[in-house]
Amino acid sequence: MTSTLGIAVIGTGKMGADHVRRIGRTVGGARVVAVADPDGDRVKEVAGRLDGASAHTDPAAAIAAPGVQAVLIASPGPAHEEAILHALERELPVLCEKPLTPDPAGALRVMEAERRLGRRLVQVGFMRRHDAEYERLKELLDAGGIGRPLFLHCRHRNVSSPSFFTSDMLISDSVVHEVDAARWLLGQEVTAVSVLSPRSSSAAPEGLRDPRLVLLETSGGALVDVEIFVNCGFGYQVQCEAVGESGTARIGDGQAMVVQSGGRWGGEVDQDFTVRFADAYDRQLRRWVAAAARGRVAGPDAWDGYAAAAVSEAGLAAARSGVRTLVELVERPALYRR
Amino acid sequence: MTSTLGIAVIGTGKMGADHVRRIGRTVGGARVVAVADPDGDRVKEVAGRLDGASAHTDPAAAIAAPGVQAVLIASPGPAHEEAILHALERELPVLCEKPLTPDPAGALRVMEAERRLGRRLVQVGFMRRHDAEYERLKELLDAGGIGRPLFLHCRHRNVSSPSFFTSDMLISDSVVHEVDAARWLLGQEVTAVSVLSPRSSSAAPEGLRDPRLVLLETSGGALVDVEIFVNCGFGYQVQCEAVGESGTARIGDGQAMVVQSGGRWGGEVDQDFTVRFADAYDRQLRRWVAAAARGRVAGPDAWDGYAAAAVSEAGLAAARSGVRTLVELVERPALYRR
Amino acid sequence: MTSTLGIAVIGTGKMGADHVRRIGRTVGGARVVAVADPDGDRVKEVAGRLDGASAHTDPAAAIAAPGVQAVLIASPGPAHEEAILHALERELPVLCEKPLTPDPAGALRVMEAERRLGRRLVQVGFMRRHDAEYERLKELLDAGGIGRPLFLHCRHRNVSSPSFFTSDMLISDSVVHEVDAARWLLGQEVTAVSVLSPRSSSAAPEGLRDPRLVLLETSGGALVDVEIFVNCGFGYQVQCEAVGESGTARIGDGQAMVVQSGGRWGGEVDQDFTVRFADAYDRQLRRWVAAAARGRVAGPDAWDGYAAAAVSEAGLAAARSGVRTLVELVERPALYRR
Amino acid sequence: MTSTLGIAVIGTGKMGADHVRRIGRTVGGARVVAVADPDGDRVKEVAGRLDGASAHTDPAAAIAAPGVQAVLIASPGPAHEEAILHALERELPVLCEKPLTPDPAGALRVMEAERRLGRRLVQVGFMRRHDAEYERLKELLDAGGIGRPLFLHCRHRNVSSPSFFTSDMLISDSVVHEVDAARWLLGQEVTAVSVLSPRSSSAAPEGLRDPRLVLLETSGGALVDVEIFVNCGFGYQVQCEAVGESGTARIGDGQAMVVQSGGRWGGEVDQDFTVRFADAYDRQLRRWVAAAARGRVAGPDAWDGYAAAAVSEAGLAAARSGVRTLVELVERPALYRR
Repeated sequence: MTSTLGIAVIGTGKMGADHVRRIGRTVGGARVVAVADPDGDRVKEVAGRLDGASAHTDPAAAIAAPGVQAVLIASPGPAHEEAILHALERELPVLCEKPLTPDPAGALRVMEAERRLGRRLVQVGFMRRHDAEYERLKELLDAGGIGRPLFLHCRHRNVSSPSFFTSDMLISDSVVHEVDAARWLLGQEVTAVSVLSPRSSSAAPEGLRDPRLVLLETSGGALVDVEIFVNCGFGYQVQCEAVGESGTARIGDGQAMVVQSGGRWGGEVDQDFTVRFADAYDRQLRRWVAAAARGRVAGPDAWDGYAAAAVSEAGLAAARSGVRTLVELVERPALYRR
Repeated sequence: MTSTLGIAVIGTGKMGADHVRRIGRTVGGARVVAVADPDGDRVKEVAGRLDGASAHTDPAAAIAAPGVQAVLIASPGPAHEEAILHALERELPVLCEKPLTPDPAGALRVMEAERRLGRRLVQVGFMRRHDAEYERLKELLDAGGIGRPLFLHCRHRNVSSPSFFTSDMLISDSVVHEVDAARWLLGQEVTAVSVLSPRSSSAAPEGLRDPRLVLLETSGGALVDVEIFVNCGFGYQVQCEAVGESGTARIGDGQAMVVQSGGRWGGEVDQDFTVRFADAYDRQLRRWVAAAARGRVAGPDAWDGYAAAAVSEAGLAAARSGVRTLVELVERPALYRR
Repeated sequence: MTSTLGIAVIGTGKMGADHVRRIGRTVGGARVVAVADPDGDRVKEVAGRLDGASAHTDPAAAIAAPGVQAVLIASPGPAHEEAILHALERELPVLCEKPLTPDPAGALRVMEAERRLGRRLVQVGFMRRHDAEYERLKELLDAGGIGRPLFLHCRHRNVSSPSFFTSDMLISDSVVHEVDAARWLLGQEVTAVSVLSPRSSSAAPEGLRDPRLVLLETSGGALVDVEIFVNCGFGYQVQCEAVGESGTARIGDGQAMVVQSGGRWGGEVDQDFTVRFADAYDRQLRRWVAAAARGRVAGPDAWDGYAAAAVSEAGLAAARSGVRTLVELVERPALYRR
Repeated sequence: MTSTLGIAVIGTGKMGADHVRRIGRTVGGARVVAVADPDGDRVKEVAGRLDGASAHTDPAAAIAAPGVQAVLIASPGPAHEEAILHALERELPVLCEKPLTPDPAGALRVMEAERRLGRRLVQVGFMRRHDAEYERLKELLDAGGIGRPLFLHCRHRNVSSPSFFTSDMLISDSVVHEVDAARWLLGQEVTAVSVLSPRSSSAAPEGLRDPRLVLLETSGGALVDVEIFVNCGFGYQVQCEAVGESGTARIGDGQAMVVQSGGRWGGEVDQDFTVRFADAYDRQLRRWVAAAARGRVAGPDAWDGYAAAAVSEAGLAAARSGVRTLVELVERPALYRR
């Protein structure tokens, strides 16, 4: 622990800046040594607050900077592939915010690069896998605590959506978290997707189909229904009820403090994912740093990123056509069989 | 209250015998004066325990017996129509266990008989409308407490199914309760049905498709998903979460007593609908008796029975075909517009 | 069930009028045949709404009226003893609102009258014993579900107190319910009382000591702490957590419907005991009517009324002196040993 | 963050070893450079697992070792004072496990040493102040969310007590946490203590008075009742319900995952404080390290340790005498007025 892992952070927007702060504040054994962002002023400002970190507008330059031993990618999705490939050229461990790539083809190219290296170096930032409640649910399912899973009933709600949010993004940006969580919790691939939409909420911006119900079928015969509602108004909420052959388990009710006042009992609903999943982000980063120091991956890998992209693509097709759409995956390469 | 309503009970199986006991025990102002059942021994035994009630093997004879002022029908579904028509001939108020009739055609004939009389006399035994939690949810929705409803997420679980239960009955016998509850809660008709089935639970009897996910679309653009699972093993459970434009409301968690013991906290899940809905059955009967004494209906009527039958029929078609199926309803007669 | 029990109702204030309605509405096999109240206009009005009931200003006259087979006493506490003794002279079953009598001496005289008759005819209106949650807790304790009870932690909260409420009444009128509930749940007598008072709430009327903490010690070595808070502002709430040698059980959280809205999750707190204990009042009356028809008592009897009065008396002394006060009881007569 | 804080850890028993692991695993910017323990083998083993840490049997030697910039004391209570005074001689920041000292006299000497230095350097390990739920409750109270606090109802339960546990330790070792939490939550001093004991649980070891009810009165007129039960059998549980003039707030129910199975719903109760308060220990250490690097204290200080010791002393006297006992505090020195 006396030597610290030197990290290059690619992208210094909301998520990237958050990761920079997180590394400084809560992660031992790591420090940011280079940052990259096309916005030259912003990147200089971020680097200026860090002791001895270099600022770059070119991701490749940051990745090649002295002292860089690992790469954290938080740039927009379309920029991920190129940055990952630069990191892989130098055999550096990567933590890449989701999505790995916007489409399955890009993810396949990342997998091909890893195949050539003969090892997995890329981890995808599906942080729910690091959340204490999800971990408890996963343990319960793996231990057979409620028998073979039959359903996952999922709710994914945001207070309101940003102005740039589209109907497609409800699936590719939001439900993609449930896609990964379902694949991980069940240990199964998604084989088909259907999308149904009630009449949109009057609180949704003009033209946005919100909320929607996304149905996933899995290779083991389970059914996953996801309510995605990004303008629910009352809070940020991620719930999952697993129904198995002998019982059910539900997470995400979050009843830490119960208040009674003004004729009512209850509590606050978290307003933001950064609050709900703060610990999960911390743990994700600590585990990645610890694994990266040993050249390992400690979470979802490029295959998981690929599968999520493939399900997203099928989901968007299902939403457009209104009918059930099959998910097509390439055969899983040996490198990604665990 | 000094004169009591004379009731003929048609059918003395489990539900019929239950109603007889209920009238004696908890309903003031009513008494059973005639009972009918094809099983002559059973009907004599039931009548023998009642003070001055006559026993019949022919429903028509029981309905025509002296002192009969109202008719409660708890015989098997296929026998309902004939008994109802006998009662309507005599202009007697009827409480008929669900389903009103097994198919929409029979229900239409019942409606036609009422149309000729010019008044509604038939009430259907959808007892959830009399449950305190459902009533609270209905009040909240009607008051706009969570805005326009977008989703109803429903869970309907039984410990295990009786030996005669078929895959069709999950829809026509079980989900029919959600069909009525959804129509009532939302004040909308169901317009389309889809049915998806995960791989059946190994706890389900050979050949039974259990559990299933039934999706209802409504005239107001809401979406209703129903998990029906009749061999869940752990208890009888009916839950409903309404999601509106500005909030959600959930009933059916039933946390009356919380016990901590042996490393766990929690409570018991009811094992049976007679426990969960005991009060609802009591209230249904009391309200019907009070309304019947004034020649009125105090709950779901023949139109509701017809609509439920029509959705059931579409649901069975959807389950067989695997595709979304439209529900077709006749125009709602003036008598049933409220 | 064809003959109905004729009831005289003594007192037609809030509680009495409530009971009259309840008998008419939800209790089969009973009807009010006489009512008494010192307020001649009010009693005539109440009787006028009942079919064939006589109105009296003298309780004794109502009890002696034709057709009276049982007596329900809902007059103020100081008037109870005389009415009970009139009823016992005629060997009529009595349901008497709590307190049986304001002091232990009066209760002893009632017990003496029953001893002379050689049978118990008096039941006290501690309705919590008829509440479904309390019954469940009692069953659990009796079955040893959490081992020998060590503590009862009780909360008893009202939105606000009526203008005539005094600091003594927090104990004699409110905590008396916990006294009976504790004796019944534990099957033990209370042996000592202590009272502690935090600085009173600024929401309490001038001069009222509110809230208070009342501590009861029992013959079996259990400890009962009662928070009594009659101006809590947010709702009516009665909670009880039993702590046993191997677990705990809590009732009174009342989470029937959970709503999420405006950044919060939770539900409504009942505002009134008539809402919270509506079913308990119904059941109490039905059971009393059924038992009275057979000349029996179906709930707390005169001994329970006596013990509650004795604990109240000790509690008031403890509140005044600020020190722990012993409860003194006469030896339990054979008639009241069960 | 590039230079790391060198820490001497005094005591390498369960708590000390835990802290050593915690510093290595989750705290950035700090490392253990010296360890001390009278058990020479154990201390060598612990030091051996650390890169470049020296091992000592004498606390003073460890504190004086090269590179030591802060001291963490986890030795038995009676050894605290001497170690603290050694650290203060060198003006080193101290994190001392509770109790600061076993008696108020020792705490006063620590305060005197700080007074001479003219600054506060000692922090006491009351980790609940760093727990997320407690913090939320504190915020709510400080913001007046439920009005002026009137009661704190506290539950403190352990599965079972270690063999060396005495009846006194229920107060001095366990309830001392509630003493600090109450003082902190309310911002008031404890002025009097009473102790009541039900008949001990049969699960408690011979001679141990367990459970007990400890009552604290505070300078602002609030009342705190603490159920301490160290052999409850079912789990580790710390709950607190604050009752204010306009509402209540409860923490410690911990309902992260709800499972339904085998006829029951509910979840697991944590079995150990290291699980329940794992995050609080982490945060305490991180905050102390960050504050120590700037020569500050980031939590309860020597005055808090002194006050806790004084309340403990009064509590033990109250337990022995059976009567309410006043707490006597010296006047609060200027250094500790915030």
